[in-house]
Amino acid sequence: MKILKNHKCFDGEVQFYEHQSITTQSKMKFSTFIPNKDKAPDGCIIWLSGLTCNEENFITKAGAQQYLAKKNIMVICPDTSPRGFDLPMEHDSWDFGSGAGFYLTATTDGYKDHYDMYNYINNELYNIVLNSFKIPKTKISISGHSMGGHGALVIGLKNPDKYKKISAFSPIVNPVNSPWGQKAFSGYLGENKENWKQWDATELIKASLKHPNEILIDQGLSDDFLEKQLLTENFKNACNEHAQALKLRYQEGYDHSYYFISSFIEDHIV
Amino acid sequence: MKILKNHKCFDGEVQFYEHQSITTQSKMKFSTFIPNKDKAPDGCIIWLSGLTCNEENFITKAGAQQYLAKKNIMVICPDTSPRGFDLPMEHDSWDFGSGAGFYLTATTDGYKDHYDMYNYINNELYNIVLNSFKIPKTKISISGHSMGGHGALVIGLKNPDKYKKISAFSPIVNPVNSPWGQKAFSGYLGENKENWKQWDATELIKASLKHPNEILIDQGLSDDFLEKQLLTENFKNACNEHAQALKLRYQEGYDHSYYFISSFIEDHIV
Repeated sequence: MKILKNHKCFDGEVQFYEHQSITTQSKMKFSTFIPNKDKAPDGCIIWLSGLTCNEENFITKAGAQQYLAKKNIMVICPDTSPRGFDLPMEHDSWDFGSGAGFYLTATTDGYKDHYDMYNYINNELYNIVLNSFKIPKTKISISGHSMGGHGALVIGLKNPDKYKKISAFSPIVNPVNSPWGQKAFSGYLGENKENWKQWDATELIKASLKHPNEILIDQGLSDDFLEKQLLTENFKNACNEHAQALKLRYQEGYDHSYYFISSFIEDHIV
Repeated sequence: MKILKNHKCFDGEVQFYEHQSITTQSKMKFSTFIPNKDKAPDGCIIWLSGLTCNEENFITKAGAQQYLAKKNIMVICPDTSPRGFDLPMEHDSWDFGSGAGFYLTATTDGYKDHYDMYNYINNELYNIVLNSFKIPKTKISISGHSMGGHGALVIGLKNPDKYKKISAFSPIVNPVNSPWGQKAFSGYLGENKENWKQWDATELIKASLKHPNEILIDQGLSDDFLEKQLLTENFKNACNEHAQALKLRYQEGYDHSYYFISSFIEDHIV
């Protein structure tokens, strides 16, 4: 692991790293904030960003460092896809391929060799958190925004013992029924829709997967993507039917941006 | 004035505007944060950004909205130069021309027709704050970062009655003696260095200009530009000799970035 940059911030340290990933067979980047260089953090949030983002967006725009500093919690923010390849369609659109890894294990030709963001996050990055940053297993939470909210819900529900807490801003909760999800899942998983369900948070709840702790979701009511892409109510209904504890907060007037995230991020740092 | 975008944030509103400037004879953009749409703000900070920046940097990266919201103070963040022209050398480097207006009144051919960021800020934008945002004359402060810190100091010292408070992060305090300043001043003002002094904060203090209130400067001690470009001590010495009240805070370990600004911006919102 190589440190590319570091910046003092709220008495802690923002750092940007690069490492060679065995999962994606590529260089991967992530950013971190470590509140106190003389003291191990008391916990870690793995933050998954949305479409078009990389390891910089959260750490520059969310304003989370002050709250992380107060609670001595670190955050780790990976990039949203492998980079540096030239697979078919990989760079043709902003909602598929580079910057749009969807936190799953791809099975289609070309993509299956590199686009395994699920195992990159849930195993490789998770182990970096355990071993390099010395965070106890019981103190790792997962959160994210939009496509990254989808990632946090899916990874957290599939691995309830590995994550203390799941939360999300504006997550894509039912991708099998949304245009973004359908495009991505066709490209990464092929046309058999049965194979898509294991990567859909609403379908996982329907299949009785469960997290022991309440899931927190903040969703803006002026989010342009709410009705067609995010489908928040589908997840709420599934949680109701299957007794998954969910705190869903619809926030009047807020949109899909980091201005929204910055306004409520404090409540996601636990 | 046309609103291009708005985003709810900490119960207030981030807005992006465009207007036709009579000063620069060009379209100009700025961003604002208004804490409460039902209540006029109790004050305004004019924020001047640094080299390469535009109207977005502060409002996305400084994390100021929460503090502005608490104190019911608005901020207005103009772009750092006119745009849309093609003057000689205007787009050749990041430290001159577009994105690098230096908050002065240019006198050189071509530039004198558009690059009057001094009057754009101090008259045109100032009047927008008074008339469109209804801020009382006694409640307008000026602040900025790097080149924008230079702008805040120079504009504030030249107009002590117009600005309640001057503050800056990592300002270029003595541009006549720094490579950035020398390059910009040659291009905007010509080679007669006597004409440069009226745009140099340290020279203004030496010429006995004064602000009635204490000036606040935060300066990181790990700032790569401190020694050669910013020359902070020159301003401190001039203030000492000429009895200008100055609170200069050297911050151990902090650099020139917005991570630094976000860590101390709360103290600049008064």
